[in-house]
Amino acid sequence: MTTNKQQPRIVVEQQFFTFAEPPNQMLLESGARLGPVTIAYETYGQLNTNRDNVILITHAFSGDSHVSGYLPGDGEDAKPGWWDSLVGPGKGIDSNRYFVICSNILGSCMGSTGPASINPKTKKPFGLDFPMVTIGDMVDAQKALMDHLQISSLLTVVGGSVGGMQVLEWCVRYPEMVRSAVPLATTMRHSALAIAFNEVARQSIMADPNWNRGDYYGKEGPDLGLAIARMIGHVTYLSDEAMRQKFGRRLQDKRDFSFGFDADFQVESYLRYQGSKFVRRFDANSLLYITKAADYFDLVDKQTTRESLHDLAEDAIKFLVISYSSDWLYPTYHARELVQSLKRSGQDVSFCEIEANCGHDAFLIPDERLSNLISGFLEGVPND
Amino acid sequence: MTTNKQQPRIVVEQQFFTFAEPPNQMLLESGARLGPVTIAYETYGQLNTNRDNVILITHAFSGDSHVSGYLPGDGEDAKPGWWDSLVGPGKGIDSNRYFVICSNILGSCMGSTGPASINPKTKKPFGLDFPMVTIGDMVDAQKALMDHLQISSLLTVVGGSVGGMQVLEWCVRYPEMVRSAVPLATTMRHSALAIAFNEVARQSIMADPNWNRGDYYGKEGPDLGLAIARMIGHVTYLSDEAMRQKFGRRLQDKRDFSFGFDADFQVESYLRYQGSKFVRRFDANSLLYITKAADYFDLVDKQTTRESLHDLAEDAIKFLVISYSSDWLYPTYHARELVQSLKRSGQDVSFCEIEANCGHDAFLIPDERLSNLISGFLEGVPND
Repeated sequence: MTTNKQQPRIVVEQQFFTFAEPPNQMLLESGARLGPVTIAYETYGQLNTNRDNVILITHAFSGDSHVSGYLPGDGEDAKPGWWDSLVGPGKGIDSNRYFVICSNILGSCMGSTGPASINPKTKKPFGLDFPMVTIGDMVDAQKALMDHLQISSLLTVVGGSVGGMQVLEWCVRYPEMVRSAVPLATTMRHSALAIAFNEVARQSIMADPNWNRGDYYGKEGPDLGLAIARMIGHVTYLSDEAMRQKFGRRLQDKRDFSFGFDADFQVESYLRYQGSKFVRRFDANSLLYITKAADYFDLVDKQTTRESLHDLAEDAIKFLVISYSSDWLYPTYHARELVQSLKRSGQDVSFCEIEANCGHDAFLIPDERLSNLISGFLEGVPND
Repeated sequence: MTTNKQQPRIVVEQQFFTFAEPPNQMLLESGARLGPVTIAYETYGQLNTNRDNVILITHAFSGDSHVSGYLPGDGEDAKPGWWDSLVGPGKGIDSNRYFVICSNILGSCMGSTGPASINPKTKKPFGLDFPMVTIGDMVDAQKALMDHLQISSLLTVVGGSVGGMQVLEWCVRYPEMVRSAVPLATTMRHSALAIAFNEVARQSIMADPNWNRGDYYGKEGPDLGLAIARMIGHVTYLSDEAMRQKFGRRLQDKRDFSFGFDADFQVESYLRYQGSKFVRRFDANSLLYITKAADYFDLVDKQTTRESLHDLAEDAIKFLVISYSSDWLYPTYHARELVQSLKRSGQDVSFCEIEANCGHDAFLIPDERLSNLISGFLEGVPND
């Protein structure tokens, strides 16, 4: 008997919460208004009577609310949620003890309102009429969901990459609600390099004639452009070392070069496969909006040049900052800057750089060290 | 009076050499045959009577034969050749002492035969009927030019990036002709990371409907795809540090975000500009062929797993290997591997890592240190 058969399969249903019905639309950071807004979310475990065992997980750029377990209707060969190795009964984030929530970010295409949603004004998909959203707007939508669930205290907010930006934004916007925070593989401000990669990805979508200025719903979409954007993404999620170990110069199904433009090398096939797979599950306009939100992310105020984290009260939030040694999208020096900034504002900060050769993607890969780090950290978070 | 006015403007004319006329076509590494082949080249300085003061410069992926000075017809505001800071009278590579040659690589579009050239069989541009060429084929074409110029000894072969690959290939193919070699910012074998970037660039061209399987000459070309390919290239030519210093998060002509898909950040404008500028001077098919040649480059024989450099006679060639500290396309560890390999084969090797924060592009940027290194190295190369 395998371990799989011994453990009951956990099935979780996606839920939906709709708010900001007109005329009480959501005010976005850009000044635009949006509503109604639907947020898709999933929960794991039970809310305790004190309502203080809540862990909010914030997902990365192309993620969704399906963190752990299976969805109703998932076949035998379906993969579990994207952080199944970390979240579940008895795991690093133990759903036997904690009430875990993850919601799909505003602007995405995995159940929450985004550019592919119906614009109530036109009864057609928004496309580029969807207003620009920021990381702060995503967090505000999550706050509305917490209010709806009558949750006013978060034991921790945890997430990696763009999810880590949301973690930090939660600390800035709603510090009174956040008892601890675990930003992983992330940054206080998007670097020029990260903006550059995002911009090339956006341009590759917008260069696809099927993009049609974002108006492609119900027609053939910008699949080729989106696939190339994803290929660029995958290069940044790995690392020189990761690619050398994973692919090296190994050839694909051949003993010699094709002397043509087929995929000769395994790394080429891998990227082509990742590109075409992504097209089946993700909306190109959502990529445009979410990458732009990431590019805008900066905890230093442009006008005052003041770091937002400086305004946190002393010891307001307990932090565990985690970086990965081979992450070249958000290298460890970004995490160190964050740690310095938090320490200057008097916070209780732990920092860990995890040795891993798999690049930025490391935070998504099952890793006992991460599970132990987080479960240990959670033990030390004071009660409300 | 400025220095510019004191120095006479050096004007160099591009020359052409055609060989491999049918039926004596050139045999390529793939087994295909190509001919006639035209090679565009420029020379600087005078060949001495011993014909032993020759320096061959091999250019990088998108370079050309115009290394230094000006072309006839260049306007007042024209820029000089791409290595003008290093090559010319009294400079690091002193054209008062040396006879300097640079030829445009086979497969390019800057005067030498490439996919945009006329296919003698069809009287139309080759397009994808152009055979795949390798770094070795490029070197063989340069060898034919040397034969034509009655040059049998090269004081040095020097080049960076894809030019550095040609330097190494010269040492392997024609060691008896090469007295010294200066490979800069290069590698013995293209890494998975470098292949990955090239593959995404190729895919972005091939996804452009105007590419039309390479058959676009005389019609609208794949300009959008080519521009994106170049943007990807420019990200790899810089570095995290270079971009942080050069652009950071500085905004473009604005005090605040556009909350739209305009170029908000200077790094975005820079990439868009570089992309659109490249389209005006480079052929998309040439990019496909040359990147593939770079990807194929590997001094380790696939069948025997033997390093070609091991077969060099002891002390056959004097080497100066140069890397740049912030080059993440061909990081210093690539150069160290090359140095180790050369030392194992008993060569006289000097190695220098130049501290520079400008990434892979560093070898193209005026740098007194590079000029001094090379001029000093050339002094020590024994006479024929």
